[in-house]
Amino acid sequence: MIVDDSLKAWLALSLIRGLGGESARRLLKEIGLPEAIFATPASILKSYVKANIAAQIAQGIDEDALVSTLAWLQDDNNHIVTLADNDYPQALLNIPDPPILLYVKGRLDLLNHQALAVVGSRNATPQGINNAEAFAQSLSESGLCIISGMAHGIDAAAHRGALRCQGNHCGGSVAIVGTGLDKVYPAANRDLAHALAEYGALISEFPIGTPPLAANFPRRNRIISGMSLGCLVVEASLKSGSLITARLALEQSRDVFAIPGSIHSPQSKGSHALLKQGAKLVEAAQDILEELGSLFISEPATNQPPLDNHDPQELETSDAAILEHLGHDPVNVETLSTRCGLTVAELSAMLLTLELAGHISVLPGGMYQRVH
Amino acid sequence: MIVDDSLKAWLALSLIRGLGGESARRLLKEIGLPEAIFATPASILKSYVKANIAAQIAQGIDEDALVSTLAWLQDDNNHIVTLADNDYPQALLNIPDPPILLYVKGRLDLLNHQALAVVGSRNATPQGINNAEAFAQSLSESGLCIISGMAHGIDAAAHRGALRCQGNHCGGSVAIVGTGLDKVYPAANRDLAHALAEYGALISEFPIGTPPLAANFPRRNRIISGMSLGCLVVEASLKSGSLITARLALEQSRDVFAIPGSIHSPQSKGSHALLKQGAKLVEAAQDILEELGSLFISEPATNQPPLDNHDPQELETSDAAILEHLGHDPVNVETLSTRCGLTVAELSAMLLTLELAGHISVLPGGMYQRVH
Repeated sequence: MIVDDSLKAWLALSLIRGLGGESARRLLKEIGLPEAIFATPASILKSYVKANIAAQIAQGIDEDALVSTLAWLQDDNNHIVTLADNDYPQALLNIPDPPILLYVKGRLDLLNHQALAVVGSRNATPQGINNAEAFAQSLSESGLCIISGMAHGIDAAAHRGALRCQGNHCGGSVAIVGTGLDKVYPAANRDLAHALAEYGALISEFPIGTPPLAANFPRRNRIISGMSLGCLVVEASLKSGSLITARLALEQSRDVFAIPGSIHSPQSKGSHALLKQGAKLVEAAQDILEELGSLFISEPATNQPPLDNHDPQELETSDAAILEHLGHDPVNVETLSTRCGLTVAELSAMLLTLELAGHISVLPGGMYQRVH
Repeated sequence: MIVDDSLKAWLALSLIRGLGGESARRLLKEIGLPEAIFATPASILKSYVKANIAAQIAQGIDEDALVSTLAWLQDDNNHIVTLADNDYPQALLNIPDPPILLYVKGRLDLLNHQALAVVGSRNATPQGINNAEAFAQSLSESGLCIISGMAHGIDAAAHRGALRCQGNHCGGSVAIVGTGLDKVYPAANRDLAHALAEYGALISEFPIGTPPLAANFPRRNRIISGMSLGCLVVEASLKSGSLITARLALEQSRDVFAIPGSIHSPQSKGSHALLKQGAKLVEAAQDILEELGSLFISEPATNQPPLDNHDPQELETSDAAILEHLGHDPVNVETLSTRCGLTVAELSAMLLTLELAGHISVLPGGMYQRVH
């Protein structure tokens, strides 16, 4: 993108060490655009910010500090949008702490697209992953942009599902990340990051070069919820960071949705806690669309696939019987043995077959669960 | 039990062909006890009931019609309680259509014991059966009588679980059945019926000799919910009769509770429908006891097992440290951050966990406080 003096001043202001969002917004409100702020003497700046920060600003724009970012902006796919830009997500103007600028890699049009946050545990169950993909794809088919945090587990699955939708009616997908946009974290999501950069967008409030820092991840959650009409928690343990996103969504007056699961699954305990507190229980993407109602104007999808496209292959009778006994809750092999009247040895071989055929998953602790 | 003329008159009135509950209660209200009703001329009875029914009553008590019931009452364990008896379930006096008398086999004291309905699908999953047994046992240990319909599946499991509890503190179990009490339906539950007759009770509003008739089963559901403080639906398909019981419970201003499950399990779809309509999501028996609150005065259980053995109550050291620093006065997160030496971001996630686990509360203004 073309870098003018105005943008340089925004960038330089955002890079002033120790200048928090609240103070930066105070300067913008009281003095004006960043170019004007840099032209203001320290004696006046001191009325709004601490003395050491006023002194830094009064020294003017530090061109050296901008070099790496300006180099990054050489790529046509990379952008910076500031609070003053039309492309800045208008939804963020209603949250308490909007970043003064955002780094964007990919499609700028998605920043103001109607969106839904789809989040959940990193340590997800196979069924949780399937649900995240299926809901995200279906919601994208309906025209909603799927926003998540590109973390392992549910987040990545939500992005993948949304990107499966192809065509003009799709809502696309946006990742709000906790590092500089020159980094990919976690590294295992490199391919996903490239796909998002090409077909969706990655957004960060953190400067180019920012490594993964634990404190930055909860912080970016306010942008995930803030850019969204609502927040769907697909699967969450009681310690999942996605619960922070859900709470921020509530604070920002967004709808919170949660998918229920077995009361014995640790990965559903966070979701159930949300449901007890009033989150809306959803079983299908349609539940969310109905709840959003007039908030979201759905575009007609042309060829919407069913949510669950895993057609169960033909099963042998005994395999079908095992699936029947397995139910949809995690079960250990001893319990299953009692239920089926088969020995553990007999069962083990059959369970392996079912696992390889994709009908069941093995969970941590040797628990078995039906996938479909 | 001793059969006097008064009881014979109650029984004869209840056996008048075509006399519905509403008309019978009108006669009781306008004329008086059944003996007085049978002494009333048809010309007066006709002001309250149809002519053919008035004529039947005016013929006096048909002793032949009572023979089989009187024979059944020879067994000391068999009883009839009428609207005028102290043993009649007082909770039923608040429902729109209380039976004028009930046949009871077993413990009369359970008719006015604090109770919870535990119901669900006949076609239950193995996990659903386990949940029904575990919840019923735990609630019985807390002193609640478990009321259900003795159907296959969840109902039978609920009775079994409740009867597992042994000791004076147990709440016992009552089956409300849809046949005469000289029949057992379904036949597979014969052993359960015998156990209920010995350690709990079976109740029917249908005369001795009444076979299983489809129309009678939904009807007895109002007694299941009516005798209960609330209704727990353990697992229900969209066609489960237990949803009728849940709806009746709502109409009778009883709490409705539901256990969530996989969105892919047909046996959870009815439960999820209830949860969408405002039923309370429960993960453990304790959730129900807390919700019933002052409605239910729990008796101290001597040897109460943990409700859910997947639920680690142990706190991680860091969580314990936060509680220590929190003290028992409201504190804001900045103060707590200073006390703990953790960043606000680190703290936020940990505070949320503690909140969801019920250890702390968030007060207005973002203040945190220990709950215990």
